Amino acid sequence: MIDLCLLGTGGTMPLPGRALTSLLFRYSGRCFLVDCGEGTQVQIRKSNISLHDIDVIMITHFHADHINGLPGLLLSMAKCDRTEPVTIIAPMGAEHIIECLCVTAPSMPFSIKIIEIIEDHKQFKFGDLIIDAQLANHSVTCYAYSFTLTRSGKFNPEAASALGVDIRLWKTLQKGESVTSNGRVITSDMVMGAPRKGIKLTYCTDTRPTEMLAKLAAHSDLLICEGMYADEEKYDMAVEKRHMMFFEAVKLAQKAYVHELWLTHFSPSLAKPQEYKNYLANMFQNSLIPSDMEFKTLRFTDQ
Amino acid sequence: MIDLCLLGTGGTMPLPGRALTSLLFRYSGRCFLVDCGEGTQVQIRKSNISLHDIDVIMITHFHADHINGLPGLLLSMAKCDRTEPVTIIAPMGAEHIIECLCVTAPSMPFSIKIIEIIEDHKQFKFGDLIIDAQLANHSVTCYAYSFTLTRSGKFNPEAASALGVDIRLWKTLQKGESVTSNGRVITSDMVMGAPRKGIKLTYCTDTRPTEMLAKLAAHSDLLICEGMYADEEKYDMAVEKRHMMFFEAVKLAQKAYVHELWLTHFSPSLAKPQEYKNYLANMFQNSLIPSDMEFKTLRFTDQ
Repeated sequence: MIDLCLLGTGGTMPLPGRALTSLLFRYSGRCFLVDCGEGTQVQIRKSNISLHDIDVIMITHFHADHINGLPGLLLSMAKCDRTEPVTIIAPMGAEHIIECLCVTAPSMPFSIKIIEIIEDHKQFKFGDLIIDAQLANHSVTCYAYSFTLTRSGKFNPEAASALGVDIRLWKTLQKGESVTSNGRVITSDMVMGAPRKGIKLTYCTDTRPTEMLAKLAAHSDLLICEGMYADEEKYDMAVEKRHMMFFEAVKLAQKAYVHELWLTHFSPSLAKPQEYKNYLANMFQNSLIPSDMEFKTLRFTDQ
Repeated sequence: MIDLCLLGTGGTMPLPGRALTSLLFRYSGRCFLVDCGEGTQVQIRKSNISLHDIDVIMITHFHADHINGLPGLLLSMAKCDRTEPVTIIAPMGAEHIIECLCVTAPSMPFSIKIIEIIEDHKQFKFGDLIIDAQLANHSVTCYAYSFTLTRSGKFNPEAASALGVDIRLWKTLQKGESVTSNGRVITSDMVMGAPRKGIKLTYCTDTRPTEMLAKLAAHSDLLICEGMYADEEKYDMAVEKRHMMFFEAVKLAQKAYVHELWLTHFSPSLAKPQEYKNYLANMFQNSLIPSDMEFKTLRFTDQ
């Protein structure tokens, strides 16, 4: 399962009562953060995850509202006695940008491994978690990220017994490996059912909608997607600034057959996003206009 | 008069419910900000002063909790359509530090005039307001600032009439200039009373107490001073980290004969500074342990 918290829902600048958009989630003891604008560290403190425990930080792009909180976060992690390495995944140029921003945070008690994405699409693995970064379409290089947990099929003990496999070898088969039993090679697929549905989470901001983003988000249990403007009169501005309208986020979600849609990264001009709740629900029923600090647990559905 | 707001009261890192220490004040239509940590722009939005209107920003020193919010503030001022120049006063090295921090804010619609202080003491004038910067004693170069409004004496119309000065020349005398009346030079002091008490505000953090700081703060109507630690067992840590204890801020205030003392820049380890209210009041009666967004108006006392 993945425990997640959408720390903030704002775009452009932090406001009283609306922190900048950032996603924090935990899987299998590891903590992941996507984007870190001014004030993100304060929002993390409101969650049940310690600053100390953040292992991987992904940055979508280098606009201030997505990265300016990074030096402060790293400093505060240091004050929380973090000594384990931290991985930062970000677009090309990250080394330089982070070095500049950290001018007031010259040394850290932990190493920072910066991975710059140079491809349009790049995959990372952290244990069982697969992270896909996909180039978006914003005014600067920007990536959307999906997080996938695959899940193997159910083990069939009757089949293993029928094949005469010693019970001590079952664990090996369950891991997907082969064993030799009575001189015969038994492969994992002979005793495991079809792969079960995993968990998929996609985070997509700031960008125009694209075919590749629909592909990235395909069949997500939850798509957290920017909805910069709700009022359709702002369409031209959305196009000009390479952002998305509410209705465009919905179209993307529909195209990607996602199960649930959360909108975020609201423009400061959108004073009360909640007023568009019905407007959104009429387009996409399983949707939410979240407030800051929106928690959710994504679980494997087929137990 | 000076309208001021202590925007935050925290030191080291921003916390939920405790923003970083920063002072905003307005005098004669001009707005001044002292220090700008992460989240300061959000606190400004809670005041009655627009981001658009900030004219002068003073930075005490280049630790993250005092300057990391600057690029975000400048960007948000730009979004508020600021076009008038902004002055930044800061220690030596400011040009480089600000350039680095603003890597994600490459261009602004207003010019930024950076004044680097290289002397131990430096005086600036903005209209009637005198700003004194005094080198403090911290782990990095740090300045405390005082803000003084002087006030001339009362004009004596009877004296001016007795001297035969034409009523149309009175304004010139009131401005402190001389006039010639009936072939005789009349100087301002001949018709003006003794200078009246002005207004003085001093902001002092992060530093050990020093004689020069007592001199800077002398006879302030309000001294806003760091009180990093309250518990006297933390004295060694205060010395080591070049910060001040509550009781040291009190001694400084006493030495400077200030009228009122506010403490600020509380350590994150000081969870409930208000619990030391009586402890502080027993040492200095006219004192306050403020919360974030503490407002006050300093007025001329002798009308």
